[in-house]
Amino acid sequence: MTFTQKLRHIIKTKTSLLCLGLDVEPELIPPGYNTLSFNQALIEATQDLVIGYKLNFAFYESLGKEGWEVLAGTRAMIPPDTLSIADAKRGDIAHSARLYARAIFDELSFDATTVNPYLGRDSLQPWVSYKGKGIFVLCHTSNPSACDLQQKKLAGGESLYQAVASMVASLNIHQNLGLVVGATHPGAISTLRQAYPDLPFLIPGVGPQGGDLEKALRLGLDNQGSGVIISISREIISAAQGGDFARARRVAESLRAEIQKLKDMP
Amino acid sequence: MTFTQKLRHIIKTKTSLLCLGLDVEPELIPPGYNTLSFNQALIEATQDLVIGYKLNFAFYESLGKEGWEVLAGTRAMIPPDTLSIADAKRGDIAHSARLYARAIFDELSFDATTVNPYLGRDSLQPWVSYKGKGIFVLCHTSNPSACDLQQKKLAGGESLYQAVASMVASLNIHQNLGLVVGATHPGAISTLRQAYPDLPFLIPGVGPQGGDLEKALRLGLDNQGSGVIISISREIISAAQGGDFARARRVAESLRAEIQKLKDMP
Repeated sequence: MTFTQKLRHIIKTKTSLLCLGLDVEPELIPPGYNTLSFNQALIEATQDLVIGYKLNFAFYESLGKEGWEVLAGTRAMIPPDTLSIADAKRGDIAHSARLYARAIFDELSFDATTVNPYLGRDSLQPWVSYKGKGIFVLCHTSNPSACDLQQKKLAGGESLYQAVASMVASLNIHQNLGLVVGATHPGAISTLRQAYPDLPFLIPGVGPQGGDLEKALRLGLDNQGSGVIISISREIISAAQGGDFARARRVAESLRAEIQKLKDMP
Repeated sequence: MTFTQKLRHIIKTKTSLLCLGLDVEPELIPPGYNTLSFNQALIEATQDLVIGYKLNFAFYESLGKEGWEVLAGTRAMIPPDTLSIADAKRGDIAHSARLYARAIFDELSFDATTVNPYLGRDSLQPWVSYKGKGIFVLCHTSNPSACDLQQKKLAGGESLYQAVASMVASLNIHQNLGLVVGATHPGAISTLRQAYPDLPFLIPGVGPQGGDLEKALRLGLDNQGSGVIISISREIISAAQGGDFARARRVAESLRAEIQKLKDMP
């Protein structure tokens, strides 16, 4: 089964497009918990509702030495029917990329990761060779400055992010590649979906960053009404402040339901 | 003192442009050593010859859980008159970039780092705010596929890597920014140096990757005959195979001398 098929399968069996971003900052953790036990409680409270958990490595590396252990420990708690996504955004020359891939896919056993395309094709190749893993390449990110380079018009008329998508599509022989496209840029979602009807999209930026969920879904779903991962973090995690994980679950439940409703709208 | 001034000062006092890349793979380590003690021996053997040590995080992260400790341990052994460069190539939205910067500059206390520009201005801002630290932005990398995106011609006529350099220059209010430019692309070194006479360049790619040292220096030196870091790894490290650190020192010595000779050629 290719990664794309696996993703669609999980989306179907779990009836969800929701991914919880475990972006935990110390001030969000209730008394009596540490990052690892907080993550554990969040996973236990939401695992039937989400298709995956996304761990942005910045949050873990900022913890210093213990960060890597919390990362590995959290990864180990993610159930096998749910995607574990390493949001590490690595990008390096081929030899180093191989080592990063080894760290993320072999050592930490993540199912999928995000990578940065700036170094070009040979920097993506080592990731691509992990046939069963998912590789989401940064294409049009969710931040305001995404436009600085990603929307630069190239001499041929297309924008840089379109050239990135085209490079990714041409490397996708194992059907294990996807694109990161921020919900804050619905125009990019639309353009990319029209050009690539079956590439999976990882969509951050809904919520505090200002992305519009309805548009992200209407424009982003693939040709099978699937292939989209909506990653939400703070909205769910902050509901667990004070240790109220049932409240975090309710928030996740209602987000999932809202997504399903919008997804199934004619 | 700005980072650029600090770099020029180190280059002057150590009469060197050589930086040793501590890219250590397990098969290079002689019996009786581990990565940390191997790094220690390399640092002891070369510290008077080099202006800095560059640690590519990929090599450390691929060691798994202990990798982060080896990274921190190695960093701690780099003498204060010598630059410690975190070759981490991070690139993320501002909030996450702040956390990565905290990990690299506050937790690990590196003097400088490499970052990826693909996410644009707001992703670089948190790094820039560390006024005394050095931030080398990937501009034209040393790998063959660097051309895929970095040499794309933009509608205005310049290439993407030139647009990156221009963005970097405009953010350089604290004189703490520089560019990564591969020795394998002398044309890019020349173009960038002409446009930015005083931006520091971190130049990898000399040696096995095929970069030409003479051209890198002739085209890359800044308007003070300084401002260039020549990063070399395998050539020096592999000389220490079998535990012969005196040989590694001789290789570093001769590289440093060759660089100085080329640097001072009329």
